[in-house]
Amino acid sequence: MKALVYTGPEALVVQDMPDPVATGDECLIEIRHAGICGSDMHAWAGHDERRPAPLILGHEAAGLVIEGPLQGQHVTINPLVSCGSCEVCLTGRENLCARREIISMPPRQGAFAEFVTMPSANLVTIPDGFPTWKAALAEPIACGWHAVRLGSRILDRPVSQASCLVLGGGAIGLGAALVLAEKHAGEIWIAETNPARRQLIAQCGPFKTYDPSNDTGPDQVDLVIDGVGFEATRSAAFAKVKPGGVIAHIGLGSASGGVDVRRATLQEICFIGTYTYTQQDFRDTAQAIFEGHLGALDWPDIRALSEGPDAFRDIKSGRAAAPKIILVP
Amino acid sequence: MKALVYTGPEALVVQDMPDPVATGDECLIEIRHAGICGSDMHAWAGHDERRPAPLILGHEAAGLVIEGPLQGQHVTINPLVSCGSCEVCLTGRENLCARREIISMPPRQGAFAEFVTMPSANLVTIPDGFPTWKAALAEPIACGWHAVRLGSRILDRPVSQASCLVLGGGAIGLGAALVLAEKHAGEIWIAETNPARRQLIAQCGPFKTYDPSNDTGPDQVDLVIDGVGFEATRSAAFAKVKPGGVIAHIGLGSASGGVDVRRATLQEICFIGTYTYTQQDFRDTAQAIFEGHLGALDWPDIRALSEGPDAFRDIKSGRAAAPKIILVP
Repeated sequence: MKALVYTGPEALVVQDMPDPVATGDECLIEIRHAGICGSDMHAWAGHDERRPAPLILGHEAAGLVIEGPLQGQHVTINPLVSCGSCEVCLTGRENLCARREIISMPPRQGAFAEFVTMPSANLVTIPDGFPTWKAALAEPIACGWHAVRLGSRILDRPVSQASCLVLGGGAIGLGAALVLAEKHAGEIWIAETNPARRQLIAQCGPFKTYDPSNDTGPDQVDLVIDGVGFEATRSAAFAKVKPGGVIAHIGLGSASGGVDVRRATLQEICFIGTYTYTQQDFRDTAQAIFEGHLGALDWPDIRALSEGPDAFRDIKSGRAAAPKIILVP
Repeated sequence: MKALVYTGPEALVVQDMPDPVATGDECLIEIRHAGICGSDMHAWAGHDERRPAPLILGHEAAGLVIEGPLQGQHVTINPLVSCGSCEVCLTGRENLCARREIISMPPRQGAFAEFVTMPSANLVTIPDGFPTWKAALAEPIACGWHAVRLGSRILDRPVSQASCLVLGGGAIGLGAALVLAEKHAGEIWIAETNPARRQLIAQCGPFKTYDPSNDTGPDQVDLVIDGVGFEATRSAAFAKVKPGGVIAHIGLGSASGGVDVRRATLQEICFIGTYTYTQQDFRDTAQAIFEGHLGALDWPDIRALSEGPDAFRDIKSGRAAAPKIILVP
């Protein structure tokens, strides 16, 4: 099969790779759309030791099942495979499974390719006629769904009465903001430095957007969702959260700095890390997408797989305004 | 009145100070017992800019009301005074009030003295015959009560099914452990480096104690309570908490280092700061003490106020094994 292969730092090559083979309960899926994630960017830059070259990246995908139990159905793919039998799996937190695997990380190849195989339980059927490129957004938006769910659970008030700030207007940040809108959050701010992207996301929902490099943005808020995860955004999160408020930390741009232990302690700030989503979150997000609860979702930039190398460079340089670039194998 | 006055780094002098005067709804309290807290130690070392010399330290106190609405009653003192009218005060989180004051921090003098004044609402009446020195433990134990309450609320299981680890066996750590025992926590470990103190606290409840400088202690636990708050204890907390678990951070020994952002994110660790207690927590703790639910509470080391300077030095040097030294004016 044809695949976009990461061959070393900032190097991607479209080349032939062995066709994957579905076994047991697995399905063989012909990929129709696969989005580029920040973690793909991180791996491409050579900064993710868990993703050594050569490797097919990509884990935000939807396509058509051509072999296996769901043959003939269009599906969106939950790329996270857990063991199903450990304590966290049995209590519905399978995203924390110590044996979890995700496509695009060995031993599993990624979705920037013509085909992948996946267990049937990881597939959510897409309604007839619904675009696979919108369905492929289930993965990044489910990260936001999960973060909003975990953060809301800790808040000392209903999310409908909470002021919220999302740091970063990529697909994860925008996704979290769309979920907050769906939950009727009291006020939703998005901090985004890229002016073209800022303009685009301002039209996607009831959002107040601002440039954190120039503007102060909101006063302190009840809930901050950090969809970026660098020292600067964590510092901003700790400065912008109210006493007693919650920071949900999704992004992991860098792992050090920005945590204000003093303020966390004296003002009872809660900092909770969030990683991907549970199976239920993924299904709930896909359903919300299918039912139109998360807006028009007309913001991805869709390109051919062969244009993948340029797309990665455009994201790095900031030339890509869209919160998501989706590749078509 | 006679008072133990902090006059500069590591300097304490018993000297005459003006008698405080109760006004309005305030009571004038003759202090019977007042405990030495880690924050008193911090101020005495010259490390707390919020507590400049000259100042009377001490905020863990009980005594007899000699003037005001509760005249004639023995009381234990909630030392935290909040405005009562802001958003957090009105929603029961008055410990986060931006205008909060605590005795032993200007403009309020502390309790290592013959008298203090306090609003009546801050006083909890002690049952007849109950020792004031045990009642004076309400303050440090309420910090643990509050931390257990906040941490339990976030846990993904009932605290009765949670394994717990308390870092530090001072009065706050031991207090938190006693509260966990009162809530029938599944397993309660206490890490304490001082061998004499470790031996003492092992007898105070259903605790497993260990020396974190030599022993590994428990496997990972659901809830860690950091009653110390240095880089080393935060690092230990992040290493010892299970995926999906909770760290409640009470101590504030130092404000930098030890937070594992990577593990917090990939393993969904929740780090919540906790500061003092609400009025309700304080009253609940005092009631639990009066009813004997927190054990015999026979572990304080009680000394005369005039021995205060030696007591501070004994705590600093590690010679003091007791989790709490209480001074008698």
